Amino acid sequence: MSHRPANLSEKLSTFSEYWSPKIVSHYNDNDVMVVKVKGAFQWHQHDDTDDFFLVLKGTLRIEMRDGDVTLQPGELFVVPKGVEHRPVAEEEVHLLLIEPKGLPNTGDEATAATKVAI
Amino acid sequence: MSHRPANLSEKLSTFSEYWSPKIVSHYNDNDVMVVKVKGAFQWHQHDDTDDFFLVLKGTLRIEMRDGDVTLQPGELFVVPKGVEHRPVAEEEVHLLLIEPKGLPNTGDEATAATKVAI
Repeated sequence: MSHRPANLSEKLSTFSEYWSPKIVSHYNDNDVMVVKVKGAFQWHQHDDTDDFFLVLKGTLRIEMRDGDVTLQPGELFVVPKGVEHRPVAEEEVHLLLIEPKGLPNTGDEATAATKVAI
Repeated sequence: MSHRPANLSEKLSTFSEYWSPKIVSHYNDNDVMVVKVKGAFQWHQHDDTDDFFLVLKGTLRIEMRDGDVTLQPGELFVVPKGVEHRPVAEEEVHLLLIEPKGLPNTGDEATAATKVAI
């Protein structure tokens, strides 16, 4: 068994593309991922799971139909399952994400990014 | 529905006791918690779940029978389920923890700390 911590800054330094989550660990049946985002994602929802966001760098707005939240570094928010949301980053944002293994990040397999381990 | 992010530093500033996790959010059936720790915890294991640690401040050593990991701020490690471990903090450490709701932090209801929401 390999006992190695995941250094999130190091992991983030290994890629530059946006909206392409990279798996850095697993927690039970979930992928623990880092991602760089910039611009507006699409409106989507996950009917069967909450969606965990922790901001590591930058400012992320998560728009929801009944109100937005704005997250600074060191702030986390969990979008409840079934709640339609759209993440928006005016400037580059680095995030820690937790989602069930294999979950399409758009809520739809057809449009989802491939998640790879780094 | 309240849409409010959890600011981890703010949450951590509201208490001072060690080894007493505070719930700041939920992700599916898990508690998302912050905790301050100092000194050595007891050896324990969770037979049914992984154990998620992200260091926010300080240096945490997680001792395991077959090798230790040392985590700095911005580093995370997931102790696999069933793996005996002992967290050790020479100086005060602030952590983000994720565990299934209701899980005793010692792996044993009799000795576990009560987790409260803040």
